[in-house]
Amino acid sequence: VEATTQLSYALDTFYFLVMGALVMWMAAGFTMLEAGLVRAKNTTEILTKNIALYAISCVMYLLCGYNIMYGDSINSVIPGISFLLGPDNTAEAVLAGDDDAPYYSNLADFFFQVVFVATAMSIVSGAVAERMKLWAFLSFCVILTGFIYPVQGFWKWGGGFLDQAGFLDFAGSGVVHLTGGAAALAGVLLLGARKGKYGPNGQINPIPGANMPLATLGTFILWLGWFGFNGGSELKVSNIMEANAVSMVFVNTNAAAAAGVLAALITARIMFGKADLTMALNGALAGLVAITAEPLTPSPGLASIVGAIGGILVVFSIVTLDKLKIDDPVGAISVHGVVGMWGLIAVVLSNPDATLSAQLLGLFTILAWVFITSLIVWAIIKAVMGIRVSEEGEFEGMDLADCGIEAYPEFTGSHGSGK
Amino acid sequence: VEATTQLSYALDTFYFLVMGALVMWMAAGFTMLEAGLVRAKNTTEILTKNIALYAISCVMYLLCGYNIMYGDSINSVIPGISFLLGPDNTAEAVLAGDDDAPYYSNLADFFFQVVFVATAMSIVSGAVAERMKLWAFLSFCVILTGFIYPVQGFWKWGGGFLDQAGFLDFAGSGVVHLTGGAAALAGVLLLGARKGKYGPNGQINPIPGANMPLATLGTFILWLGWFGFNGGSELKVSNIMEANAVSMVFVNTNAAAAAGVLAALITARIMFGKADLTMALNGALAGLVAITAEPLTPSPGLASIVGAIGGILVVFSIVTLDKLKIDDPVGAISVHGVVGMWGLIAVVLSNPDATLSAQLLGLFTILAWVFITSLIVWAIIKAVMGIRVSEEGEFEGMDLADCGIEAYPEFTGSHGSGK
Amino acid sequence: VEATTQLSYALDTFYFLVMGALVMWMAAGFTMLEAGLVRAKNTTEILTKNIALYAISCVMYLLCGYNIMYGDSINSVIPGISFLLGPDNTAEAVLAGDDDAPYYSNLADFFFQVVFVATAMSIVSGAVAERMKLWAFLSFCVILTGFIYPVQGFWKWGGGFLDQAGFLDFAGSGVVHLTGGAAALAGVLLLGARKGKYGPNGQINPIPGANMPLATLGTFILWLGWFGFNGGSELKVSNIMEANAVSMVFVNTNAAAAAGVLAALITARIMFGKADLTMALNGALAGLVAITAEPLTPSPGLASIVGAIGGILVVFSIVTLDKLKIDDPVGAISVHGVVGMWGLIAVVLSNPDATLSAQLLGLFTILAWVFITSLIVWAIIKAVMGIRVSEEGEFEGMDLADCGIEAYPEFTGSHGSGK
Repeated sequence: VEATTQLSYALDTFYFLVMGALVMWMAAGFTMLEAGLVRAKNTTEILTKNIALYAISCVMYLLCGYNIMYGDSINSVIPGISFLLGPDNTAEAVLAGDDDAPYYSNLADFFFQVVFVATAMSIVSGAVAERMKLWAFLSFCVILTGFIYPVQGFWKWGGGFLDQAGFLDFAGSGVVHLTGGAAALAGVLLLGARKGKYGPNGQINPIPGANMPLATLGTFILWLGWFGFNGGSELKVSNIMEANAVSMVFVNTNAAAAAGVLAALITARIMFGKADLTMALNGALAGLVAITAEPLTPSPGLASIVGAIGGILVVFSIVTLDKLKIDDPVGAISVHGVVGMWGLIAVVLSNPDATLSAQLLGLFTILAWVFITSLIVWAIIKAVMGIRVSEEGEFEGMDLADCGIEAYPEFTGSHGSGK
Repeated sequence: VEATTQLSYALDTFYFLVMGALVMWMAAGFTMLEAGLVRAKNTTEILTKNIALYAISCVMYLLCGYNIMYGDSINSVIPGISFLLGPDNTAEAVLAGDDDAPYYSNLADFFFQVVFVATAMSIVSGAVAERMKLWAFLSFCVILTGFIYPVQGFWKWGGGFLDQAGFLDFAGSGVVHLTGGAAALAGVLLLGARKGKYGPNGQINPIPGANMPLATLGTFILWLGWFGFNGGSELKVSNIMEANAVSMVFVNTNAAAAAGVLAALITARIMFGKADLTMALNGALAGLVAITAEPLTPSPGLASIVGAIGGILVVFSIVTLDKLKIDDPVGAISVHGVVGMWGLIAVVLSNPDATLSAQLLGLFTILAWVFITSLIVWAIIKAVMGIRVSEEGEFEGMDLADCGIEAYPEFTGSHGSGK
Repeated sequence: VEATTQLSYALDTFYFLVMGALVMWMAAGFTMLEAGLVRAKNTTEILTKNIALYAISCVMYLLCGYNIMYGDSINSVIPGISFLLGPDNTAEAVLAGDDDAPYYSNLADFFFQVVFVATAMSIVSGAVAERMKLWAFLSFCVILTGFIYPVQGFWKWGGGFLDQAGFLDFAGSGVVHLTGGAAALAGVLLLGARKGKYGPNGQINPIPGANMPLATLGTFILWLGWFGFNGGSELKVSNIMEANAVSMVFVNTNAAAAAGVLAALITARIMFGKADLTMALNGALAGLVAITAEPLTPSPGLASIVGAIGGILVVFSIVTLDKLKIDDPVGAISVHGVVGMWGLIAVVLSNPDATLSAQLLGLFTILAWVFITSLIVWAIIKAVMGIRVSEEGEFEGMDLADCGIEAYPEFTGSHGSGK
């Protein structure tokens, strides 16, 4: 094998690992975002959920998820099933001059993919926060990461029927974000709103999060991690064209997020009269979700517009869901579900290979698959072990009910107050 | 094109993107640092300012800043003006064997540069914290990032007259940090001190920050990001000499920061009798700012000395500014302005190409340009919409006045207290 | 020199720098972890300790540590001594076609190594938290980072007698983590437990940490940084075999941590009946420490088992140390010392070159060397300046006693309360 082939393989592999490490960091981002947006009494529990869901995602994807998504399939709808990663014979294939040999380590690919699964699951934890039982949540996590996510992932990224139908989803506005949003919506519908969120006469009571700096930190972490999420999804960097493509993805990802912040900030200013920090944060995330389905083909100007529309959309979506009494403490369904759909549609604005019909096919397939299977799984868990904490547990806080450790034992005067 | 040219281009581009991602992370660092050093009642507002200024920086630099700084200029003093990035024809140029073809993606360069602008602007938000109106601040941000910064950036990094005069500023002790410090000083002079900071009989009242762990986290984030800031400013890594140079920059950057911590800690211990954490944090940043103008040519030992002097200087500067009743809640003017000047001068200690006269020319040019234009812009904003919140708003806190969301609603017993 | 040699050198150097930056980030991780697990009144002091210890580590390792560890030695037991880094003549050697020439910058190597020293020292600060004098701690830091650590590092990684005896320690379960744990144990034994931790009738009083989100953030930071810690310890990435090896290290490191979380969470659930967040966090770290001695040769399945055993072990170790009245506020001795030993032994499960006898030789040599020298140094410091704060200082909090700045002045109603 020539030295340049070796170097190219090494550079692409290293690029995957660095991008994967950035995506892994998003787990911390979701954790901080959610910990900042819940009340103090539910903080330890959301922290526990987040680190545990990341761990479960890694275990389940190693156990079977990756193989379902990328293994030998039965046909373009039904994936195959096998357990644990096979031996890595990449090097033998490359060194033998095999034309089909991968140009980067398949273990690096696994690492990059596994952190995506965790991202999808992280979306759910925010939406069901402050009232779902810890162990019910973790049980759902096992099924989503080991089965629901990999199946639809196979349909698109594993070469299944959505891919064959021309559905485009560069880094996962649909495969990852809409999946998370749809699973969250199913959970929230079965779970109901937090006590006191919606008053008897139709009023909507704001329940402010306990720690805004944490929520902001989480958003910045996610923004940083997204360079890995989108940038790594180009899947190659080792020649001029690919290096330029990855650079374009970075620039557009950043531009969309920035435009999302400003659009959401201004929209909220007009609607509420104040500079609403949580809307600005959700605007950043909405911009990022919106550009994720196609961060390569737009110009930076168009990317800004795609992100800005995401930022506007998220404000209206959050307000609308509240009117529908769909209680989502962190806005995850709006940010990832609603804006994820916008991202899938926006692909047609710049990518000549995209068709609206294929995008809608992908959108509704993912939405239907994830929402229906999730609803079934949540319902089974509800029947078996219950999904909602007791009324007393909710009043006193999840931390005492599930974890036995307070998040801020010295800062909140009256422990377990309804505050 | 040969395979090695392709690989070299890809490696340099990837290096730019990774370094740029680290610099982007500094936005989170400034946010956490400032959020930790203000009082609880002004925290949501400083968070909002920081994420919004990052977003505005990205939009303005895309819209016109980058073109002013690096586009076709009229002469060595007056830059050109054009809007939005042109099409990326890097690949064509390289593949055509054009001798002037860039050796890395110009989009990667844009990404790296855009995060520098945000750094300069982040410096300002700390100095004017706890009393400046949000929208006045954001208006200034538009002008600084779209015009004031790019013009002086053109003078040095865009090949303008400061560059031609032999002024050296490797990664921006002047172009970035002194710029931020000078703009901040202009703002603070027009704005005045926080209520209660300086007593009628000359006493200086400490106003402790609400959250030391956040401030420390912010400092560590900045330290990490600085490896991208300085390391990426070598602009190339893909051969032996350049790889060694980037390594030297990393080692010296780290050494200067470490020495800055210890120098500031010991200086403060001698002066105040205590181990002052905020001085240690500012010492780290001062060490980093000091080495930024020349992190390549010093030995690690000399880099430590340059950083240590920065660490000592920052303590004296903070004390002195307080005596002058220039109220800077986070010490930004001292860290970035005063130590930035030291950094520019320190170049002559190790770089044989540097002259004191050229360094002073650059220093005073940047200082004068940024200070005067900023003073004018702040004055116009003051006349049009006012820059200072009402006395009641300041007493109750910026969070309620501007944002309507408290940062820590459950932790501070008496909301909006003067505390 | 051929272009491919240049590129290979550049890629390996860049890889070292990126991995080193990730390890440097671990300093922030330890800081946040420890700041979250102590009480509010001791938080500023632990923050000060952490940033100062990082700075001291960098200065001492530059001054003499690196030269002791990797310089010309007297024999395989006694290292040499010299000061400051020599000039970097890497480029000359490579360009001259020297066969022994390094394949990457020795400055990049220094950067990577220096952040390891700080990691070892970070382990100590957590164990002695809430009662050790700041300046006594920093004095010990000078000796550990400048002498104790480098000597045993020389024995293994510098090619000394442990290396010659076949002792294997890929990234430092022993050289770094057991070293930190042993030094911490020596300090804790001389220091005694915190007031009120152990009651007169044998009861063990929990002293909850003040800020669980910080502790969780710290754990995620460490998890991310560990990809650099283990991934960089492969020392090369620039060909197919090495790129695959680094990928395997990433996958195994992540798998072990994930399994550690779940194992500790379940173990604690069985033992205590609750989902214990701090045990989950320690489980993640235990999984990481356990896999650090050999993250390359296990399959991901075996890596998960090694990590899971680490996660179980850490729960039992923490409970046992408490029964022995060895007071370790953050569990550092268990995580890094006890699980570090497990990691060293676990090498024999997958690496055919490992022998149990060589592993035990290395384990006991490091343990004995570090524990005994640390005990002596702590004892000298105790005799000279004392190591424990006054009873009043401990009651009021280290922040007031040593630092004069409260960490959260607005959140804790009764400053300096025993709470």
